[in-house]
Amino acid sequence: MGNEWLQGPVASIDAAATAAAEARQGQLTKPPGSLGRLEQVAIRLAGMQGAEQPSLERLHIAVFAADHGVATEGVSAFPQEVTVAMIANFAHGGAAISVLANTLGATLEVVDVGAASESPAMPGVISRRAGNGTSNLAKEAAMSEAQLANALAAGREAVARAVANEAQLFIGGEMGIANTTAATAIGCALLQRPAIELAGPGTGLPAAGVSHKAQVIERALVLHRAAMASPLAILRCVGGFEIAALCGAYIAAAQAGLPVLVDGFISSSAALLALRLNPAIAPWLILSHASAEPGHAALVAAIGGEPLLDLGMRLGEGSGAAVTVPLLRLACALHNNMATFAEAGVAQGA
Amino acid sequence: MGNEWLQGPVASIDAAATAAAEARQGQLTKPPGSLGRLEQVAIRLAGMQGAEQPSLERLHIAVFAADHGVATEGVSAFPQEVTVAMIANFAHGGAAISVLANTLGATLEVVDVGAASESPAMPGVISRRAGNGTSNLAKEAAMSEAQLANALAAGREAVARAVANEAQLFIGGEMGIANTTAATAIGCALLQRPAIELAGPGTGLPAAGVSHKAQVIERALVLHRAAMASPLAILRCVGGFEIAALCGAYIAAAQAGLPVLVDGFISSSAALLALRLNPAIAPWLILSHASAEPGHAALVAAIGGEPLLDLGMRLGEGSGAAVTVPLLRLACALHNNMATFAEAGVAQGA
Repeated sequence: MGNEWLQGPVASIDAAATAAAEARQGQLTKPPGSLGRLEQVAIRLAGMQGAEQPSLERLHIAVFAADHGVATEGVSAFPQEVTVAMIANFAHGGAAISVLANTLGATLEVVDVGAASESPAMPGVISRRAGNGTSNLAKEAAMSEAQLANALAAGREAVARAVANEAQLFIGGEMGIANTTAATAIGCALLQRPAIELAGPGTGLPAAGVSHKAQVIERALVLHRAAMASPLAILRCVGGFEIAALCGAYIAAAQAGLPVLVDGFISSSAALLALRLNPAIAPWLILSHASAEPGHAALVAAIGGEPLLDLGMRLGEGSGAAVTVPLLRLACALHNNMATFAEAGVAQGA
Repeated sequence: MGNEWLQGPVASIDAAATAAAEARQGQLTKPPGSLGRLEQVAIRLAGMQGAEQPSLERLHIAVFAADHGVATEGVSAFPQEVTVAMIANFAHGGAAISVLANTLGATLEVVDVGAASESPAMPGVISRRAGNGTSNLAKEAAMSEAQLANALAAGREAVARAVANEAQLFIGGEMGIANTTAATAIGCALLQRPAIELAGPGTGLPAAGVSHKAQVIERALVLHRAAMASPLAILRCVGGFEIAALCGAYIAAAQAGLPVLVDGFISSSAALLALRLNPAIAPWLILSHASAEPGHAALVAAIGGEPLLDLGMRLGEGSGAAVTVPLLRLACALHNNMATFAEAGVAQGA
C-alpha cells in the first residue's frame, strides 16, 4: 500500500466566498473588527465552505487510540492498560470527549489503530489495528513501513466516513499512554531541537520523570538520526499509530475540502508532519487551543497561526478542539444573523 | 433614595459544595488538572450555586443603554444618535448581543437608563431613564446625586428581575456612544493613572483621536479632582448611567447569590467600582474575556483574576461575556457527566 496519496491535490479555498464574507462583516451593526477573531474565523470558514454564510451543524470527531512500546521506559504517569480501558470509556460515554461530543451533537467514533491488546467489539469503536502497539522507539523503529501506511490510511478512512456523513468540520483526537513521548520526539526531529527543550509532564510526570523522559527521547533521536531523513521516516521511527492516523486524516480532510480543527500537543505534532508532507493543506487547519504541555508553543510556531483558546488544558482526546466548537458556531451565528447598518437604520462610524 | 444598600451583606460561597466539587474533579477519568480552567470554573460555580453539580440553563442578560454629554467633545468614532438606533436594533434582534442571546437561549432585556432621547415603546426595552444622557464630564459632574442613585437602582432592579426569572447567571452589557471615555476616566481616578496610559480607540478612533480623547479625560480628572474623594463620587463626576447601573447590578447580584459574568472594558470599570464599594462581592465575579481596548488589562489587574477568553473583541453589549457562556456550560457538562475512575474501571495515575 503506497503513500502517494499524501501528496495529492488539496481543495481550493473559495476566494469569492471569502470576499463576500469580508464584505458582509463590514456591513454588520458593530464597529469594524470589534468581534475580533470571531470575524476572522467566520470569514475563513466561509472560504473553506464556499458559502458567504458558513455553518457548523454537523461535526465528525474521530478519536484514534493506540499504544506505545516506549511506555516500558517509564515515561508516563499512567499504566499502559489505561489505553484499552479508555477505549471502553469513550464508547460508554464517560470520557471527556464523549461528554463533549454528546453536548455538541457531534458524531463520535473511536478508532482502535493499535492498542496493546484487542478490545471486545463495542458500538462506536472501529477496529482498524496496525499492530499491538508500536515497538519501543528508544530501541528500534516504532513501526514498519507497512504499519505506517496502514495507520495513515486509517486516518484517511475516518475522513471518508466524515465526508459520507456530510460533516462540516473534522476533529481528530487521540488516546495512547506515552504518546507525548512520541509527539515530543517528532517535534524535536522536525524542528531540530533537543529533547530537554520540548519534553513536558504529559499526563502528570513530576520533574524527575520529565528529565528521564527527555533522556529516553534524546536516546531515540540519536539512535534514529540517520534513518530520519524525511517526515515519513520520522513518523515511522519515533511516531505512533494514532499520530500517523491523525496525520493522514488532516491531509485527507484538506484534499476533501473539509475544515479541520486541530486539538493540542499530540495533534499538533501530527499537523506539523502533515504540513511538511503537503504544505498546501495549511489553509484547512484551524488551531483550537494552546495546550499546557510546554512543547506545544514550539509546534504552534512552526505550524503558524494562533490557537483560539488558552485554558490550560492538556487532556488530548480532541477535547480542546471540541471545547472550541461553540466559539466557531457563535462566530457563524453572528456573521449570518446580525443586521446590517442599512437593515437596522444605524449610522456607520467615521 | 439612599445608596446604603450597596454596602449590604453579600451571599456566602458554599464551602461544602466547593469541597465536594473539588473531590469530584479528582475522581473523573482524566489526569488531575488536565481540563485546566474548565475544572476551576466548574468548582467555582458549584460553590456559588451551593450544588456539587452546577448548571447554567437559565441566563439573564441585561443591556444598559445611555448617552454621554462628553460625546460633544468628539471622543467617539460614531455619532451619538447610534445609541438610540442600537436600542431598537437590540430589541429587533439584529445586534450582536441579540444574536448571542437567541443562540444561547438567554433572556435578554434592554434597559434605557438615559439615552439622549426617549425611544418609542418596544417589546424587550425597559424605560428606566435617569436623564437625557449625562452632562459633559469634561465641564461639569456627569450626573447629580439623585441621578446616580437612580441609575444604581436600575441595575439592582434588573437583578431582581433575573432572580424572579430564576436565572443561574447574570450578564450585564452596555451601549453608549462615548462610554469608553467615561470608563477610562473612572479607571484613571480609581487607579491613579494618567489618561494617556489607559485611553484607547474605543469603537475605532485613529491615533490622533485617542490623543485628543486622553486630553479630554485628563481635563476632567483635573476639574473633578477635589470632588472625587470616594468611588461613588468618581462615578457621579465622570461615570455614566449605564456604568452606574452595571455597578449596582454587580453588587445586587452578589447580595442575591447570583453568579456574574463580567464583560469587557466598560463592564470592568463598573466591576472595579463595585469592588471598591463592597469588596465582599469578589467571589461572585467571573471575568469573561480580555478586551482589545488597551486599558482593560489595568482594570483586570486591579480586579484580580484572569479572563477566560482573549479573542480581540471590543464590542461591549455583554458580547464577550455571552461568547464565554458555552465554555462555562461545557465545564458544567464535563464536571457533571464524566465517569469516575471507579465507574469506568480505569486505573488512576501514579
